[in-house]
Amino acid sequence: MEKTHKILNDPVYGFVSIPYGILFDLVEHPYFQRLRSIKQVSLTHYVYPGALHTRFHHALGALHLMTLAIDSLKRKGVKINKREAEAAKIAILLHDIGHGPFSHTLENTLIKAHHEDLSLLFMERLNDEFDGKLDLAIKIFRGKYKKHFLHQLVTGQLDMDRMDYLNRDSFFTGVAEGVIGYDRIIKMLNVADGRLVVEEKGVYSVERFLTSRRIMYWQVYLHKTVVSAEQMLKLVLRRARELYDAGTPVWSPPTLEYFLSNKITGEDFHNRRNELLDCFAELDDTDISSAVKAWCKHPDALLSYLSYGLVHRRLFRLEFSDKPFPEGYIRRVREALANNRDLPRGAEKFLIIGEESNSAYTIHKDEIMVLKKDGSVTPMSQASTFGIAPRTFTKHFLCYPKEISAELDRGADAGA
Amino acid sequence: MEKTHKILNDPVYGFVSIPYGILFDLVEHPYFQRLRSIKQVSLTHYVYPGALHTRFHHALGALHLMTLAIDSLKRKGVKINKREAEAAKIAILLHDIGHGPFSHTLENTLIKAHHEDLSLLFMERLNDEFDGKLDLAIKIFRGKYKKHFLHQLVTGQLDMDRMDYLNRDSFFTGVAEGVIGYDRIIKMLNVADGRLVVEEKGVYSVERFLTSRRIMYWQVYLHKTVVSAEQMLKLVLRRARELYDAGTPVWSPPTLEYFLSNKITGEDFHNRRNELLDCFAELDDTDISSAVKAWCKHPDALLSYLSYGLVHRRLFRLEFSDKPFPEGYIRRVREALANNRDLPRGAEKFLIIGEESNSAYTIHKDEIMVLKKDGSVTPMSQASTFGIAPRTFTKHFLCYPKEISAELDRGADAGA
Amino acid sequence: MEKTHKILNDPVYGFVSIPYGILFDLVEHPYFQRLRSIKQVSLTHYVYPGALHTRFHHALGALHLMTLAIDSLKRKGVKINKREAEAAKIAILLHDIGHGPFSHTLENTLIKAHHEDLSLLFMERLNDEFDGKLDLAIKIFRGKYKKHFLHQLVTGQLDMDRMDYLNRDSFFTGVAEGVIGYDRIIKMLNVADGRLVVEEKGVYSVERFLTSRRIMYWQVYLHKTVVSAEQMLKLVLRRARELYDAGTPVWSPPTLEYFLSNKITGEDFHNRRNELLDCFAELDDTDISSAVKAWCKHPDALLSYLSYGLVHRRLFRLEFSDKPFPEGYIRRVREALANNRDLPRGAEKFLIIGEESNSAYTIHKDEIMVLKKDGSVTPMSQASTFGIAPRTFTKHFLCYPKEISAELDRGADAGA
Amino acid sequence: MEKTHKILNDPVYGFVSIPYGILFDLVEHPYFQRLRSIKQVSLTHYVYPGALHTRFHHALGALHLMTLAIDSLKRKGVKINKREAEAAKIAILLHDIGHGPFSHTLENTLIKAHHEDLSLLFMERLNDEFDGKLDLAIKIFRGKYKKHFLHQLVTGQLDMDRMDYLNRDSFFTGVAEGVIGYDRIIKMLNVADGRLVVEEKGVYSVERFLTSRRIMYWQVYLHKTVVSAEQMLKLVLRRARELYDAGTPVWSPPTLEYFLSNKITGEDFHNRRNELLDCFAELDDTDISSAVKAWCKHPDALLSYLSYGLVHRRLFRLEFSDKPFPEGYIRRVREALANNRDLPRGAEKFLIIGEESNSAYTIHKDEIMVLKKDGSVTPMSQASTFGIAPRTFTKHFLCYPKEISAELDRGADAGA
Repeated sequence: MEKTHKILNDPVYGFVSIPYGILFDLVEHPYFQRLRSIKQVSLTHYVYPGALHTRFHHALGALHLMTLAIDSLKRKGVKINKREAEAAKIAILLHDIGHGPFSHTLENTLIKAHHEDLSLLFMERLNDEFDGKLDLAIKIFRGKYKKHFLHQLVTGQLDMDRMDYLNRDSFFTGVAEGVIGYDRIIKMLNVADGRLVVEEKGVYSVERFLTSRRIMYWQVYLHKTVVSAEQMLKLVLRRARELYDAGTPVWSPPTLEYFLSNKITGEDFHNRRNELLDCFAELDDTDISSAVKAWCKHPDALLSYLSYGLVHRRLFRLEFSDKPFPEGYIRRVREALANNRDLPRGAEKFLIIGEESNSAYTIHKDEIMVLKKDGSVTPMSQASTFGIAPRTFTKHFLCYPKEISAELDRGADAGA
Repeated sequence: MEKTHKILNDPVYGFVSIPYGILFDLVEHPYFQRLRSIKQVSLTHYVYPGALHTRFHHALGALHLMTLAIDSLKRKGVKINKREAEAAKIAILLHDIGHGPFSHTLENTLIKAHHEDLSLLFMERLNDEFDGKLDLAIKIFRGKYKKHFLHQLVTGQLDMDRMDYLNRDSFFTGVAEGVIGYDRIIKMLNVADGRLVVEEKGVYSVERFLTSRRIMYWQVYLHKTVVSAEQMLKLVLRRARELYDAGTPVWSPPTLEYFLSNKITGEDFHNRRNELLDCFAELDDTDISSAVKAWCKHPDALLSYLSYGLVHRRLFRLEFSDKPFPEGYIRRVREALANNRDLPRGAEKFLIIGEESNSAYTIHKDEIMVLKKDGSVTPMSQASTFGIAPRTFTKHFLCYPKEISAELDRGADAGA
Repeated sequence: MEKTHKILNDPVYGFVSIPYGILFDLVEHPYFQRLRSIKQVSLTHYVYPGALHTRFHHALGALHLMTLAIDSLKRKGVKINKREAEAAKIAILLHDIGHGPFSHTLENTLIKAHHEDLSLLFMERLNDEFDGKLDLAIKIFRGKYKKHFLHQLVTGQLDMDRMDYLNRDSFFTGVAEGVIGYDRIIKMLNVADGRLVVEEKGVYSVERFLTSRRIMYWQVYLHKTVVSAEQMLKLVLRRARELYDAGTPVWSPPTLEYFLSNKITGEDFHNRRNELLDCFAELDDTDISSAVKAWCKHPDALLSYLSYGLVHRRLFRLEFSDKPFPEGYIRRVREALANNRDLPRGAEKFLIIGEESNSAYTIHKDEIMVLKKDGSVTPMSQASTFGIAPRTFTKHFLCYPKEISAELDRGADAGA
Repeated sequence: MEKTHKILNDPVYGFVSIPYGILFDLVEHPYFQRLRSIKQVSLTHYVYPGALHTRFHHALGALHLMTLAIDSLKRKGVKINKREAEAAKIAILLHDIGHGPFSHTLENTLIKAHHEDLSLLFMERLNDEFDGKLDLAIKIFRGKYKKHFLHQLVTGQLDMDRMDYLNRDSFFTGVAEGVIGYDRIIKMLNVADGRLVVEEKGVYSVERFLTSRRIMYWQVYLHKTVVSAEQMLKLVLRRARELYDAGTPVWSPPTLEYFLSNKITGEDFHNRRNELLDCFAELDDTDISSAVKAWCKHPDALLSYLSYGLVHRRLFRLEFSDKPFPEGYIRRVREALANNRDLPRGAEKFLIIGEESNSAYTIHKDEIMVLKKDGSVTPMSQASTFGIAPRTFTKHFLCYPKEISAELDRGADAGA
């Protein structure tokens, strides 16, 4: 008797399985295997040392949840044939395949391209290789297939992507409060008029899912130290490229050197797809980490300062504020950076002014719909009595070397 | 070397411990041991078969959390001396000691008295027995002690009682989504101006705690089947007393017979405290269950109908509605009950019209206060950006024997 | 679309389901529902307060595991048709239906019959009621069906009964070390020559399963306090019957009174099956607890002493020993009991001399067989390199009222 | 009020804390921080994708357990003063600080030195830096301190190292059966005559701990695929050095290049301690991974073959056997390698003949001692009735490229 599935241990779910056939072949493909070396949550492990899990593991977890969701929907009478089921699984498996090293952190820093676009390009390339077997998966991924709910399971406010990453990130960070009742939510999913809906008694589980997201955002993804480290990593790579452009040698692994020396854009990927995807597919977290370690000893004072700080966790200070920082304060920070003797010359470039925003829930597009017992469908924002606020909250931040903290704080006292 | 604590296995927390001395002696006291036979969540096990945990276990769990909370507060510099710590622990240990069989369900049915009042009477009685060693605990329990936060740890919107029961009920029902991050919330507690506050970064955990309560309310405590069973239990006891009053013999264990034959009120408890507490302390879930089983064969058709239904899970149908039920419908139900031949004569008494309400959060009294990083204190309803709605939601319900369901449903179709 | 399964929350497994049809109908039957009031581990909750779970919950859990096991075997190519699968599920669901109140504790005390015999009688009675639909289940239960492995899944050294109760008892006691990797063991099961085997790489999981049993035996099932309480309960019932036989009125619920007044044996059950099963089916833990509570005030000093001690946890002292206790010591204990003034006259009857034995593993019958990679089958005791000892260990015990402890201990010192 | 501890999330234990002072300062030291980039279980993530946890996390976990153990022992009256407690914590924190990249895999391949020796050197170096504050910790680590049990908590058959790694590896691999009852075992530890003992009732927990080790060894640490990948990694580095020695340029990060170009031995470390430790401290998993990736395109066919196979998971086949492989078979494998056209010339060097052995328990040195209730102390191998076999089991293995599998298998059939 033949085995039909490859079984893997997943500490989050116990066991997950990959059906032999195209799904297994895709997992074995070097394009997918490279996700083994791309951490799901970038530098979050600086704060939560367990958070070293990868996009590889996440994609397999999302596949697992998709399998559960499809089985549950079919048991409720929703029509999903074998071809559609497989295609939806392919789409979720590959939804993040376009992520580069350090995921979101370096997106648009190292390469001017969005990971969704790259994911699509990878899928198309794989579709060529697999003789068109990904046609339907790509249609679903792009939202062009008539059974819209399949797309929503891949990308939507209750998709299998979020469902897995909230659970997984919660598990590996140890922020237990982020855990969601994925099994119950999946059991509550249904389809009405071709769209994904949640059955009424699942409303409380969805509320809970939304608070999980809030917790994970403010406690993990936007944790001060995490944001600070990620901002520093961006600065490091920008500086490395500046030097490169100016003709200063910058040691780096060949895979990374390619992208430092060539400024690749999303357009380039379209024009020279196969070549560029192959180069991109060889790049992962390892290359960046290895380079940053080497740059600790680079002769350029700015590059080595940043790299050393990042490697040895001498991170920038980060201030959050609900309002934009006043011009005067920004000027004062910049001057302090320029004049501080412990910092290398040019350190005023280290000032980062940014913002992060998050909405637990949005009503603008593709809102979560609730299927009432009487068969009517109503948006979640009306069905819930908890008072879900579909507002977006923005936090502004300043980020700069700690060396000027004392000086700034003195100023604050003086001003008071 | 002497052991200082008795250690017990608690599946919820791993191990919990009881310090030898007055706390251990109170646990060993028959008044407290009787809680071993009073289920924490009454008839919830009809729906969630694991939910057989007792008030005994809950009280020990709440003691455990109180110990954690006091330790944490002291580590933050809050002044709590040994005497106060012990008193707060006594207060939480005994906070529910006045609960009778089937807890809330039979409160005011069997005995016209509130469990809080009885808890206080038990404490005072024990205080006599323990030579005044419960003085401070009683003060704290009643909110008369200057360090108000100790009272809030016993009774308040973030008290150790709720913290334990949400966790425990979630654990034993298996409704995993009800779990709360009690350890993190406790770590975030602090004291400002003598009142309990939550540190700002704990706001998301508190939001999460509030959604846990919502989930547990609608999914467990107010589950249709649970409410229906509990309403039937009330009817059974009311009918038993009616018969008793009318002189019909009603078999029951001696402990229960006392309360059937005597109509004891809260006032009586005050007047004949010691005698009545002793009688009350001998009554537990066992006596009720045993009686109801015996009543399945009682000659009175109403009593045996109700008892048989309860024992063999032939439960009433329950309809929930956001609005009060129209007069006309109620009349129709009552007539159906009166005319149905499968029901005993007098079944129109079985119609129960009631309501259940729940608010995840209230701003009226003792609102949760948040300690901001700048030292200011602000109410949770303003500190949270999630849009917590401090509204109370009321669900009206009708509950009646299933035998008339078909008839009522036919009527509904006809009317439509 | 129709629902095919009833889904229940089980804290141990998350969700378990019962297929509608005969399995669901059996669960709803009063014979099965009565298991809701029979605790799985008798008085273990005296030591582990969470251990209040019932045989009802256990039977559903075992059904769940049987479903997993059958699915897994079928995926491996083992031929099991629908009828056989359903029959095996019925057999495991009903395997313990013959248990009386307080399970093993009162077996042979209250009624002279084995629960396995009663389980079979219940099944036959239900078979009549369900028009022969339990024929195959009964064959499997009795080991008379050709596919012997189905019987082994119900009763054997790796059956679904043990698998569930080890997990469940571990969960509810909080003795986390008792947990077993049931999912992995089930995945490792296979069939060779019609018999159940474990695949070679499952050997370590089976070793682990055996240590779980050891832990649960010595730490839970044979815990001193548990054994002591259970011995007392036996004494209570024996004394009650003695009084009954002597014509002294002994208050008890009617269901219990039947069995006190009639000495029912296994043979009686065969002769008057339907009548006696109905009486037996009305008896559960509640009746015993309720009676024991009432007996605390019984005029007979022995009965009230024992009952009070049991209800208020003034339990007997228990001594364990690897060897039988010397005659001289036993005599001394008996005399101490006879002469102690704090004890009621006749207390020498309270001395209990007994033994408990346990073997983690037996090679005598139905040994666990291991399927090697080369296709050969070898017994576990040879396949494991851990040195599993298939010995039976016996512990002798003496159990007697604590009142004489001081006196006995003085004697011990004097003798030394 | 001042904070006394840094608190960190550890998914395994919930929260762990590091006291400010020397322990915190050691954690912040670059020597310790580098453990963030050294995976605890080398290439195990090839099989268990979650197993990316680091020696950094493990060391903090072991510190946590040491804190629990010391607290528990003190509560039992064992005398441990503040200085000793801190020293024992330092010793466990730093016990693995001498591990190089890929831990055990590359030990003795890249550098001829044992990690224990290097750990000691690091401690001595840090002792210089911290003005002798590590004196006592070093004494304990080396087993030279009079209170021998402190050493046993760091290194012994029940030390905090094993306790943490079994738990942690079980957690992150998802091999749930490897979990141990660390909390219970720690509660059962005691000291008799200056040596660590387990109280009698802890024997079952220790048996369980031993089966955990067995499970983790055979299922994780010695998993075929893991062993195969680790053997390949060794081959890669050996080949890289051969090329280096022969003057062929081998791209590598500067940190790695140092150890490729210099053959450093344990002796060198003693002679040029500070210089070499600094070089060693800059080397971590990143450097190796980065180099191996680059070597996929190296002109040397052997190096690129191995590197590509490792990166893209085209791993060697591994055969385990209880006996040494026959000479004839080995010859046949070697010839197949030499003649296979798909393999690079010289592939016969790829044949690896090795063995792995494991004993769940050893009685030779430092056996676990059990404290009986009568105060006597007896070795675990006698106290346990489970029949623990203190034998060592050895598995021989052959490991070679998959390309010759078909040929070898044909041979096997032919021979049969």
